[in-house]
Amino acid sequence: MRMYDIIEKKKHGKKLTNEEIQFFVNGYTKGEIPDYQVSALLMAIWLKGMDKEETLTFTLTMAKSGDMMDLSKIDGIKVDKHSTGGVGDKTSLVVTPMVASLGIPVAKLSGRGLGHTGGTIDKLESFDGFSTSISEEKFINNVNEIKVAIAGQTKNLAPADKKLYLLRDVTATVDNISLIAASIMSKKIAAGADKIVLDVKTGSGAFMREEEDAITLARTMVDIGNGYGRKTVAVVTDMNQPLGNNVGNILEVIEAIETLKGNGPKDLLEVSLTLASQMVVLSGKAEDEKAARAMLEDTISSGKALAKFKQFIEAQGGDSSYVDDTDKFEKAPIVEKVVSEKSGYINKINTEEIGIAALILGGGRETKESVLDLRVGYVLNKKLGDYIEKGDVIATVFANDEDKKNQSVKRFLGALTIGEEKAQVPKTIKMVIV
Amino acid sequence: MRMYDIIEKKKHGKKLTNEEIQFFVNGYTKGEIPDYQVSALLMAIWLKGMDKEETLTFTLTMAKSGDMMDLSKIDGIKVDKHSTGGVGDKTSLVVTPMVASLGIPVAKLSGRGLGHTGGTIDKLESFDGFSTSISEEKFINNVNEIKVAIAGQTKNLAPADKKLYLLRDVTATVDNISLIAASIMSKKIAAGADKIVLDVKTGSGAFMREEEDAITLARTMVDIGNGYGRKTVAVVTDMNQPLGNNVGNILEVIEAIETLKGNGPKDLLEVSLTLASQMVVLSGKAEDEKAARAMLEDTISSGKALAKFKQFIEAQGGDSSYVDDTDKFEKAPIVEKVVSEKSGYINKINTEEIGIAALILGGGRETKESVLDLRVGYVLNKKLGDYIEKGDVIATVFANDEDKKNQSVKRFLGALTIGEEKAQVPKTIKMVIV
Repeated sequence: MRMYDIIEKKKHGKKLTNEEIQFFVNGYTKGEIPDYQVSALLMAIWLKGMDKEETLTFTLTMAKSGDMMDLSKIDGIKVDKHSTGGVGDKTSLVVTPMVASLGIPVAKLSGRGLGHTGGTIDKLESFDGFSTSISEEKFINNVNEIKVAIAGQTKNLAPADKKLYLLRDVTATVDNISLIAASIMSKKIAAGADKIVLDVKTGSGAFMREEEDAITLARTMVDIGNGYGRKTVAVVTDMNQPLGNNVGNILEVIEAIETLKGNGPKDLLEVSLTLASQMVVLSGKAEDEKAARAMLEDTISSGKALAKFKQFIEAQGGDSSYVDDTDKFEKAPIVEKVVSEKSGYINKINTEEIGIAALILGGGRETKESVLDLRVGYVLNKKLGDYIEKGDVIATVFANDEDKKNQSVKRFLGALTIGEEKAQVPKTIKMVIV
Repeated sequence: MRMYDIIEKKKHGKKLTNEEIQFFVNGYTKGEIPDYQVSALLMAIWLKGMDKEETLTFTLTMAKSGDMMDLSKIDGIKVDKHSTGGVGDKTSLVVTPMVASLGIPVAKLSGRGLGHTGGTIDKLESFDGFSTSISEEKFINNVNEIKVAIAGQTKNLAPADKKLYLLRDVTATVDNISLIAASIMSKKIAAGADKIVLDVKTGSGAFMREEEDAITLARTMVDIGNGYGRKTVAVVTDMNQPLGNNVGNILEVIEAIETLKGNGPKDLLEVSLTLASQMVVLSGKAEDEKAARAMLEDTISSGKALAKFKQFIEAQGGDSSYVDDTDKFEKAPIVEKVVSEKSGYINKINTEEIGIAALILGGGRETKESVLDLRVGYVLNKKLGDYIEKGDVIATVFANDEDKKNQSVKRFLGALTIGEEKAQVPKTIKMVIV
């Protein structure tokens, strides 16, 4: 088999065989096929596409290119949850304790985010003493005992995806549905869960700006998971404004805790309940979504979810008293109100710009080496569809530096489109794809 | 300017600016842009195309990436002739002395062929003492004095094309009309002639199998030449059978000499006269093709073209007595008749296979390091449309080794399709594109 012939075939839009896909993925991972041949093939794939079967084979070959997690020592059906990412997305912190409190095992590997705010791992480090560097044994024991553990990824999961992603990133071949779906799903499959719930975000703060593209991505990922016998469900959710009101690591943790206490914002609660319902149904603990939702609402009203969250924080060495008294979290030195420069309805939010405003404050990573300031961010008190008068407070900014604050607030305000007529507010939940 | 943005633009089918094309061609030539980004761009170009203006800029940027020949010391209008290559193509050896004998300067840089038989340079080395390694001064003096010189390429012409070609060759991005046209024309433009006549071959022995593709390639090259103010004409000619009867280096030289003596095969004479007519018209020596053709026919009947050929061979140190007595050329040790295994009409010839049969005998180069045996090859005495009986002699094979001969003859016979009904014979000259 020759790499040349594989490129030749794909550039004519022909379907690659399983052997051809395995040949190039494994050959590239081992360093036997050079970058320049793979980038030519990636561009041909970008322009000519891969069908369902090719995409599945591509995903599985990447998934199997490194370590495959073995979660068989964990009792019960393991359901994983993954989000394609957005601004103010703290659903994992809400969903995980809710689901675990129903006795469903949640064994989650998380990354540190490269983006507007930190990842789940970064956020959890807001708790004094909390560690995500736990041994595999402790990870498995914790899930068996208290039904939840979240650890940083230490194993070599899907190295083929890592290498291919770096090449895609410099050859303008990232934004292809098959390639994106395969990249996400190869890591999920290697991470070993039995079933998978995906939160595919769409809108001005998501990678998928267009709802149509988000639906196609969701469908593609569901087909991959199901094609490998890992039952997968995707929920397409809105990212045309930040999810909830808080953006920034500690601020998001506080909002997640408030949600578990029953005081959460409506959109965050809705997304969390929808995702968690899918997880509960997949786990077999409920017959349908309606029943699952009732059980989940009860975990909040009864305080079970909050108790589970505290138990989880303690089990990984964290100080759970912060959950009872969120005032204990460290505060940013500069806290100021952000006031509107115009009157009218907030009709549009360039949500990516809100994320960049948080990044400028020091809340996110520009490079792998960036050190996060977990304290900084924004708390919004106005969102899409709200009417504001000039001079009204729209948000509070939490900063550590005057210059950064000024630069950030300018960007924040520039992200808002104020109009005289109230525009329609996008639906929070767009679609569930099974 | 970033290479990433250029790839991104082209993958969406957008037109690149002159600055963008210069940025990537020059950046790649200098080693500032990596292979993997250029191969992704080449694949995007392969799939999305370049328009006339992009192709012209791409060509000129490659042409100017190295030395540009200065032929201003040569008096008169310099017309170059280039063939896209085929089996049995010895037209340069016929055309050059015909045109030069009319007082039109022919300053030709030639390469050693990598293919079925050698290039013009290899063929000329059939003459004892002939040298193509002549100084620039001698080259120019010879053209001024006797109107013809042919030298091996020593200058660094179009290094960008050389580097890009090597990358295209391993990334399945060779067979794109814009890229092929730009590659050929960048070298022709750097070689410095004022006007250019192209022989674009089509058929089973040509790179362009389909006549439609050959016409598009010819049109693209003519547009490039004319776009740069180097008046260019292309003749699309048939390569569905070897040109003339002889295939192999010395055998082809002998056939070219016979043609100059007035004993040439009809198809070779026709292609030579057509190409030479275009050169004569471009040089301004004749009003139209009809007048040019009459002048050229006279160079043969009067013996002027043959005399010019002898003068040219002598001027570069060769022994011109071989021209008078072609029996002086060295003979292959094995000379055998090839007889037909079937009766019927020769309806089709896989001409590429005939070329490979000659290559197997040792007449062509498989790699740059291959040493040619100038003596080997085939002389055909039957061609398309001829009727043969089983046992009739179709050709004579000239070989240096029994095994190679047997392997080659098998391939030669396998290249012929014999039928009961006579099929139409393709026209020799398909089209002239100005």
